[in-house]
Amino acid sequence: MGGGYVGVDVGGTKVLAVRVSATGVLEATATRPMPGVSAGPEAVEETVALAARDVYGATAPVALGVSAAGLVDAAGERFLFGAHLPWRDAPVRRAIADRTGLSVVLENDANCAAYAELASGAARGVRSALLITIGTGIGGAVVLDGRVIRGAHGLAGEFGHMQAVPDGLACECGLRGCWEQYCSGRALERVTRVALGRHLDGPEVTALALAGDQVALHSFASIGTWLGVGTAALVSAFDPELVVVGGGVSAVGDLLLGPARRALAGSLQGTAYRSVPDVVPALLGPEAGAIGAALLARDGRS
Amino acid sequence: MGGGYVGVDVGGTKVLAVRVSATGVLEATATRPMPGVSAGPEAVEETVALAARDVYGATAPVALGVSAAGLVDAAGERFLFGAHLPWRDAPVRRAIADRTGLSVVLENDANCAAYAELASGAARGVRSALLITIGTGIGGAVVLDGRVIRGAHGLAGEFGHMQAVPDGLACECGLRGCWEQYCSGRALERVTRVALGRHLDGPEVTALALAGDQVALHSFASIGTWLGVGTAALVSAFDPELVVVGGGVSAVGDLLLGPARRALAGSLQGTAYRSVPDVVPALLGPEAGAIGAALLARDGRS
Repeated sequence: MGGGYVGVDVGGTKVLAVRVSATGVLEATATRPMPGVSAGPEAVEETVALAARDVYGATAPVALGVSAAGLVDAAGERFLFGAHLPWRDAPVRRAIADRTGLSVVLENDANCAAYAELASGAARGVRSALLITIGTGIGGAVVLDGRVIRGAHGLAGEFGHMQAVPDGLACECGLRGCWEQYCSGRALERVTRVALGRHLDGPEVTALALAGDQVALHSFASIGTWLGVGTAALVSAFDPELVVVGGGVSAVGDLLLGPARRALAGSLQGTAYRSVPDVVPALLGPEAGAIGAALLARDGRS
Repeated sequence: MGGGYVGVDVGGTKVLAVRVSATGVLEATATRPMPGVSAGPEAVEETVALAARDVYGATAPVALGVSAAGLVDAAGERFLFGAHLPWRDAPVRRAIADRTGLSVVLENDANCAAYAELASGAARGVRSALLITIGTGIGGAVVLDGRVIRGAHGLAGEFGHMQAVPDGLACECGLRGCWEQYCSGRALERVTRVALGRHLDGPEVTALALAGDQVALHSFASIGTWLGVGTAALVSAFDPELVVVGGGVSAVGDLLLGPARRALAGSLQGTAYRSVPDVVPALLGPEAGAIGAALLARDGRS
């Protein structure tokens, strides 16, 4: 018995909570805005607790999974670093467990989304895949032999800060030319702002693109092309069967993935002699990270 | 009994053969120049057969391993594509078996070198590592869970043609800005030629650098820095314990690896909150690919 499993995804701009049943059925969702980084770590922990409470009400869940945008240590105890979050080498799992009184599992957001897509989404049954999550920044995860790999320190799949452009745009992480400066929700907004001379947020650009607006289409073609170029580097390194693209920015579908597929095929060596992996949309939508966190809370973070 | 195992490494400029005993002891080596690409595939196959014969003489080996610079299919039958070799989707394993009358195993050169370093070199006992081989171009291999991974189509670890510079230098593979245009033996020669106004080959630049020549030191610092930048992207993706650098260009040691370590540490996000993997030289020298091919011929290409 009990109130199912709750997953909370902590992103750069919002906190998204879901409740799933023991069989993985999505039963409730809730969203809260992120406090600014300057509000400090405890404000974020309180927002996580409140968002969780939004979806479970009076009946506490069996366990809580927390998905967070950035580096989580291999043990799932500490959040090490994230450009868009205030935690720095912080014992986040315990802090949220103490605050909520729940059993808590902590995992990187892209690994959570990959776990959800592998369990019941676009990567079901796939042995090797790259999962690229485009939200405020880029998250990534690698599936090999049917498992999400963590790497030696829990940090595998951190694609967003691979250098795409030498001496390129300054990134919040302190480096320059990071891939996510060219391929992310923030990049979409920047490219659109440069073309239009005024600010639109990501959902506004998406709505315009779906309505056929040329500026918005060009913005998606720009970040889609960068998506394909960066994906080609990863395909060269991992040689996966499949590339799955999720995150809020991917809601626009083929207006993003079409340019990405063309740039991928055009950026791989020897394509006359090799197969180019399919690039497909994630199936679980913007809730994938939160759903994966809930499923990890259910299954344990092995 | 029998004549041990022979490994032949087919690179962009030379063919290197070794014979190892059943216990893996190196017993003989021989080198032949590569025929030009225009001489065609059969001239290369004949050179492989002759180089093998150079190290086994009258007593045929138990088996022959062939290590080749480029894409080998997952089954180890076909050489798909290599910028510096004339084979294109060619049944190379069978062609060399027919020509030599030997049992032949075919594998990508960087995977061969990784197999050798993992069996008895710098990566012995390591669970996760990147192996980067810098010769005429860049070869790569990925060790996860103590095994060299192949990827879905046998093409994992092909790092050399990851894009390092958008619209950068033209590459023999047909793309632009490939990493190996900035970090390879050819890059070393080009950087030196630009600075000196005349051509020196890689070993000449190495000898000058070891003697303290400022131009040669700058050339190694340039390709070493690019080595570190590209390695940072791979470390972000794989999070390995260790990075092993081999290939002829790495014979210069810390004059290459020092700049690489600095650029790696300077190109990873969140280094205040994560450990940066060690960058160490391969132990088996320029024979690693050929030795690995011989060991694969002994052990079977699982």
